[in-house]
Amino acid sequence: MIKLIYHKPGTAPASLQVEGSMETMPPVINLIRYDETTYEEISCGDAASAIGQLDRRKMNWINVEGLHDTENVRILASHFGLNPLMIEDIVTTQRPKIEETDKGIFLITTMIYRDTEQSLGVEVEQLSMFFNKNTVLTFQSENRKDPFTGVRKRLAQQGTLIRKSAADFLAYALLDNAIDHFFPVLEMIGTESETLEENLIRNPTKAALKDLFQNKRVLLEMRRIAWPLREVIGHLLRDDSGYVKESTRIFLKDCNDHVTQAIDIAESFRDLTAGLMDIYHSSLSFRTNEIMRVLTLVSTFFIPLTFLAGVYGMNFNTEKPWNMPELNWAYGYPAFWVVVLLTAGGMLLFFRRKKWL
Amino acid sequence: MIKLIYHKPGTAPASLQVEGSMETMPPVINLIRYDETTYEEISCGDAASAIGQLDRRKMNWINVEGLHDTENVRILASHFGLNPLMIEDIVTTQRPKIEETDKGIFLITTMIYRDTEQSLGVEVEQLSMFFNKNTVLTFQSENRKDPFTGVRKRLAQQGTLIRKSAADFLAYALLDNAIDHFFPVLEMIGTESETLEENLIRNPTKAALKDLFQNKRVLLEMRRIAWPLREVIGHLLRDDSGYVKESTRIFLKDCNDHVTQAIDIAESFRDLTAGLMDIYHSSLSFRTNEIMRVLTLVSTFFIPLTFLAGVYGMNFNTEKPWNMPELNWAYGYPAFWVVVLLTAGGMLLFFRRKKWL
Amino acid sequence: MIKLIYHKPGTAPASLQVEGSMETMPPVINLIRYDETTYEEISCGDAASAIGQLDRRKMNWINVEGLHDTENVRILASHFGLNPLMIEDIVTTQRPKIEETDKGIFLITTMIYRDTEQSLGVEVEQLSMFFNKNTVLTFQSENRKDPFTGVRKRLAQQGTLIRKSAADFLAYALLDNAIDHFFPVLEMIGTESETLEENLIRNPTKAALKDLFQNKRVLLEMRRIAWPLREVIGHLLRDDSGYVKESTRIFLKDCNDHVTQAIDIAESFRDLTAGLMDIYHSSLSFRTNEIMRVLTLVSTFFIPLTFLAGVYGMNFNTEKPWNMPELNWAYGYPAFWVVVLLTAGGMLLFFRRKKWL
Amino acid sequence: MIKLIYHKPGTAPASLQVEGSMETMPPVINLIRYDETTYEEISCGDAASAIGQLDRRKMNWINVEGLHDTENVRILASHFGLNPLMIEDIVTTQRPKIEETDKGIFLITTMIYRDTEQSLGVEVEQLSMFFNKNTVLTFQSENRKDPFTGVRKRLAQQGTLIRKSAADFLAYALLDNAIDHFFPVLEMIGTESETLEENLIRNPTKAALKDLFQNKRVLLEMRRIAWPLREVIGHLLRDDSGYVKESTRIFLKDCNDHVTQAIDIAESFRDLTAGLMDIYHSSLSFRTNEIMRVLTLVSTFFIPLTFLAGVYGMNFNTEKPWNMPELNWAYGYPAFWVVVLLTAGGMLLFFRRKKWL
Amino acid sequence: MIKLIYHKPGTAPASLQVEGSMETMPPVINLIRYDETTYEEISCGDAASAIGQLDRRKMNWINVEGLHDTENVRILASHFGLNPLMIEDIVTTQRPKIEETDKGIFLITTMIYRDTEQSLGVEVEQLSMFFNKNTVLTFQSENRKDPFTGVRKRLAQQGTLIRKSAADFLAYALLDNAIDHFFPVLEMIGTESETLEENLIRNPTKAALKDLFQNKRVLLEMRRIAWPLREVIGHLLRDDSGYVKESTRIFLKDCNDHVTQAIDIAESFRDLTAGLMDIYHSSLSFRTNEIMRVLTLVSTFFIPLTFLAGVYGMNFNTEKPWNMPELNWAYGYPAFWVVVLLTAGGMLLFFRRKKWL
Repeated sequence: MIKLIYHKPGTAPASLQVEGSMETMPPVINLIRYDETTYEEISCGDAASAIGQLDRRKMNWINVEGLHDTENVRILASHFGLNPLMIEDIVTTQRPKIEETDKGIFLITTMIYRDTEQSLGVEVEQLSMFFNKNTVLTFQSENRKDPFTGVRKRLAQQGTLIRKSAADFLAYALLDNAIDHFFPVLEMIGTESETLEENLIRNPTKAALKDLFQNKRVLLEMRRIAWPLREVIGHLLRDDSGYVKESTRIFLKDCNDHVTQAIDIAESFRDLTAGLMDIYHSSLSFRTNEIMRVLTLVSTFFIPLTFLAGVYGMNFNTEKPWNMPELNWAYGYPAFWVVVLLTAGGMLLFFRRKKWL
Repeated sequence: MIKLIYHKPGTAPASLQVEGSMETMPPVINLIRYDETTYEEISCGDAASAIGQLDRRKMNWINVEGLHDTENVRILASHFGLNPLMIEDIVTTQRPKIEETDKGIFLITTMIYRDTEQSLGVEVEQLSMFFNKNTVLTFQSENRKDPFTGVRKRLAQQGTLIRKSAADFLAYALLDNAIDHFFPVLEMIGTESETLEENLIRNPTKAALKDLFQNKRVLLEMRRIAWPLREVIGHLLRDDSGYVKESTRIFLKDCNDHVTQAIDIAESFRDLTAGLMDIYHSSLSFRTNEIMRVLTLVSTFFIPLTFLAGVYGMNFNTEKPWNMPELNWAYGYPAFWVVVLLTAGGMLLFFRRKKWL
Repeated sequence: MIKLIYHKPGTAPASLQVEGSMETMPPVINLIRYDETTYEEISCGDAASAIGQLDRRKMNWINVEGLHDTENVRILASHFGLNPLMIEDIVTTQRPKIEETDKGIFLITTMIYRDTEQSLGVEVEQLSMFFNKNTVLTFQSENRKDPFTGVRKRLAQQGTLIRKSAADFLAYALLDNAIDHFFPVLEMIGTESETLEENLIRNPTKAALKDLFQNKRVLLEMRRIAWPLREVIGHLLRDDSGYVKESTRIFLKDCNDHVTQAIDIAESFRDLTAGLMDIYHSSLSFRTNEIMRVLTLVSTFFIPLTFLAGVYGMNFNTEKPWNMPELNWAYGYPAFWVVVLLTAGGMLLFFRRKKWL
Repeated sequence: MIKLIYHKPGTAPASLQVEGSMETMPPVINLIRYDETTYEEISCGDAASAIGQLDRRKMNWINVEGLHDTENVRILASHFGLNPLMIEDIVTTQRPKIEETDKGIFLITTMIYRDTEQSLGVEVEQLSMFFNKNTVLTFQSENRKDPFTGVRKRLAQQGTLIRKSAADFLAYALLDNAIDHFFPVLEMIGTESETLEENLIRNPTKAALKDLFQNKRVLLEMRRIAWPLREVIGHLLRDDSGYVKESTRIFLKDCNDHVTQAIDIAESFRDLTAGLMDIYHSSLSFRTNEIMRVLTLVSTFFIPLTFLAGVYGMNFNTEKPWNMPELNWAYGYPAFWVVVLLTAGGMLLFFRRKKWL
Repeated sequence: MIKLIYHKPGTAPASLQVEGSMETMPPVINLIRYDETTYEEISCGDAASAIGQLDRRKMNWINVEGLHDTENVRILASHFGLNPLMIEDIVTTQRPKIEETDKGIFLITTMIYRDTEQSLGVEVEQLSMFFNKNTVLTFQSENRKDPFTGVRKRLAQQGTLIRKSAADFLAYALLDNAIDHFFPVLEMIGTESETLEENLIRNPTKAALKDLFQNKRVLLEMRRIAWPLREVIGHLLRDDSGYVKESTRIFLKDCNDHVTQAIDIAESFRDLTAGLMDIYHSSLSFRTNEIMRVLTLVSTFFIPLTFLAGVYGMNFNTEKPWNMPELNWAYGYPAFWVVVLLTAGGMLLFFRRKKWL
């Protein structure tokens, strides 16, 4: 789940030589120019073309999906004054963090969102963002799903708050969107946990074990992201660089509450998941116990009786008076059954007293 | 247990488009107007009617049960100057939090209370509250049980402290009431734990496992609520907006002690519940062990003897001198029993030495 | 173990309507008046009588055992100026806490002490205390054992430090006494743990499991009490109300060291108890393993041989040349035993190689 | 894994008498002299020779691999003004730490890097470092692998940032290199964990258990190192001795982010490893359960039937009318099979209802 | 392991009436007088004699081993101005702590050292120490091993740093010695853990379980001591009473690093020990699983075949045409073996598919 893309040990700092698995699909670069009255969406072939079409009198949002082509990333990021260490951070796996520069604010977070096509499907994607007064630059590490559909729709719609606001509000909206995506994931885990509880108590299977572990992994990942993300938002709240407007603060505070809420629920779910693991163990033990009980009942019932039958199946020469006179006794067979029934009855009583029956 | 109602990802902040399960019963709006001498309880059809009947010279308490009809919530909350983000918070699941505005104090908490009709029944309900100098506005997320009966009774009674005090005291009384409800829940878990301990040691069943897990879930939920609730109360204690009177502080301090006490006990119970889980496991293992012992005793006792009986049940032609001369020996059968009894005695000794008998 | 007595939800703050189990024995009120030269112990019928016999020129210690009769508690406490919320605290279960008033210092703690009459017996009792310059007022929640014997003896003896000192020293002595009682309990658990370790490894029984859980419960309870108690003592150490004399501070510091020491040992014991639980599990698994081994050895040894004996016990018509010619072979029976012994020998080798024998 | 080399108890502080295992290979001393235009690598026989070849107008890096010959260490370290306690620290196992002196900065860290020749191979090596304005002195505790290849390559290459910078940048580069080596180790554990998960669910083996424990050990070791290492870097960041240039700070900040990232991932992996242990247990229990089920099915199926067959194998004298008249009944044998099939069918139904089949 | 000697509850503070087990051997009092040129070791009969032989112009170290004779302790301690509460602390079990007085510095710690005569042998002993400008007074709670041999040797040797320094350096040397003793204990546990890992995976025995628990106990004890010990040293480092010289600080700092290092390693070992416990459980489960597999294989293989053999051992009257015509069939016996071999083959295939073979 944790996809590690890292700087090769020994290479110079800020080098873009990275190791770890990465998709090799070409990146998609997309520019949205908007102000209160106009809205344009432009698909750009490469970084240079995107830079060429920026409009300083409007708000601009450049979104890059897929980071395999590090050169495009470098060109775009350098254009806005990001230092080489930041560019390295964009193309490698990072924990959420924020850095203020005099050119704007740079931050990294990781998005977790539901992939509704798969049961228990969750996508994890790193989002690097830079914004100054009138531009937001975002880099998504994958180009598969689009978690920003909602934001784009609000941008396209005239009269929305987002259309009337500056770049910092767009940056907030994207962050908020990333955090909002936590909740469907948490809901999925919550619902799944309830189903799992029922199933585990009734019938503990290997598939349930896998699902449990998958939930655990998602929750761990969420925790790993949410804690530093809260610091990032806290930093934005206290920011005094001027790139975050006063009016955006109240929304960031709301954002902060949401991420804290997500952390709280995720922690509760982690404890519940641990509890479900316990239930899995117990349920398995319970079933083994039950199976053993049946085996023991049947075995201890019939094994002594089989021995008895075996005895009277022996071929000792009954003409010798000491050898198995029972066999020639007129009521030997009925007596055998009496002994069998008595033994069986005694055992039933013993089992009942032990509460095994 | 954690019922998640959340803002749909991608929608504008403060939108009232929510996702997650919610009851669809119509909300109940209730207005209580009181001062030292008068007391009226008015059932209102909608938000507008409630607003129309407010009396500025008295204290007013508007209680809304059930939040499905977000429009009523919006109208009421806007009337008292709550901002749209707060309104969104009211209709979605939130952790306990508090916000001061110049119009009054807004806070959210979650109530946990006993549903005495069900064994181990616990209700969880979000309570949003806003109060200024002479009005308290409360929103309960469900309209099922009424956890406020006690407060209403004291309000209806002339001469009580609550009748003589301002809105902040009513707000305190409702919060205190919410916290007081923790203790019957804790008591239920404590009593249940003692019963469970006995039962688990004697006979570990699946029902007990479910009860244990249910207790664990309630305690987790309580912890998730109580910690931020303590912060909320601490905030009220240090509040300097003027909406909390000096005379109410001492009661809030008491409230604070109670929530800390609840946290302490809940933590102890969480540890005890983990211990009970251990006991469950051990008890199951113990039983399996005991069952296995019986199986082993019976099997190891009779299997060798059955073999012996089997041997003398073989049909080798005894006319050949090397074939089973024992069968024709006069004392073959008694000798068989001697061997059987000796073997059995030896095994008994072995079992006794192993402490299995 | 945690006996919850709580304020009924919905009742007015400071009401003395409580819920939870409480003993209904009549309270015992006891007044001790002393100064350097005189010492009197007076048994009082009710609160009024105790108040009437206070002597302002001497030190007075009023001790109330059993709180069922809340009216006596209310009268006494009100006389010394405790506010109604404090009185409610006295009769309900509280965590250790301290409150300064201008009338004196009010504190609550919980005592844990050995009940030596029972094996592993531990008593838990809430102690509420109020003291001003010349009076100490104490409320014990139960009236069973007397944990204060030692203090009383020192009081009765002329020339002791306690006789020469003021009320704050008596208050310290009672607190110190409460903390000193932790150590015999800890010693009991330590000794018990060592015995348990031996027993659990040798023979894991249900009784041992119960003892383990009982120890765990006592340690949890001690932790729940000791941490806030340390805060209480810290508060007394830093107190500047004038009710705690400078000369008493050094003794309080010692007290503080002792409670920290108790916390440390209790934490270590908690970890050891968790380890013993692990040993219990392992020991059970070990025994099951051993039992299974015996069963498997005996079964795998004899089951194949029994099959063989069964084969030659079949009644196929041996007059047909293809049917069991072995039976008519002169050395059939010796050959049978050779096969049996070879099989048995092979199995022994296999078991030895598997280290099961 | 934790190789302890420690000061013998009772010896004088700063004595170089150490205990614990240490390699006895002769140390390798290596001097690199460089400035923007020149670069020389000199292999030195002993400490004196290295000191003799230092060039004050250039940057010097003396690297000592293997610390068995403590005399060489003492001579070199003393030359640069390290106090005897620091020298003792170099030759014994230490946690990462930093000390500023007026002669330069002394720090100790531990490197963890992949030994790609072995599956799951990880090397642990202590690195002591001292640097002043123009010299970096490093001591590697082992002389096996060379984790610094990358840095050396960048040093050898003209025009790199490292060639243009002072000794503090080289010190940073070595530290950064040490931290970069964490990520391949973490990646190895991540990949291994995914493989393990699959394997453990399918077939829990002892080899997997060993691998799990090995991963756990590496993660523990990493945690033990990374936390104090972060403090060391934090200290360097806030350093005001003048030995760390302003321009190096931004790189150290990046370094700090990386170590925090490593800690985060390591913690997640620790939780996942604990989860895998759980899966191991569950998977074993599941298999035992399955095996038991087969045993129970077969046994409970055939044991009663075998008893029945045993009964009709008895040799009671059938001439007596009460003895086994069934044997002489014309349809006795078919009736036997009817009973057998009915019993078997009943059991199948029972097993199906229990979900064991 | 934790030997509790405590103040009897109810006795006056500072009373020397203690409870808990204590050795009753007579104490050994030993005085060492030294300065740069002279060194004398004097064995004293009692406290008074030791006091009489103090030499104010030299450094004096009085060491008392064994505290059973509390009177001697009282005389000595009072002579140097220790208050009664401190004297009580010396004879009872205390956590490490430090107290400054105007007469000197009083501190308590606990020493843990290897008892090399026993495998896994560890001694625990409380060390109380008081020092002023020219005297160090130490009390060891036991009089068995001598952990101070190294220090004594350095003292006896002329020209060592310790001989040239004042009493504070001797105090430091004793503390440092106590901490140095941690490392051989840790090394023992580390080595033992590696052996245990191998053994536990191969063959989990009860002896290994005991060793594991013993290691756990030592590590818990070490943690309980090391954390407050670090505070004690931190306190000495920041001390401004004048009893600790500036030149000793750097050594104390080193001491501080060592205790932190010991804590780190002990924590890692605690986690490893928990992991070994897991391995123990898993290994046992694995073995049970393996044993069960063999039992199941053999049983499910032979039980059906035994049934078949039983069937043809029945004595139905074969003269009736429906009764067991197989017995009279010419190829009945070969057909029986064909059925047996087919069944056996089918089972082998089933077992192989289940990966049980």
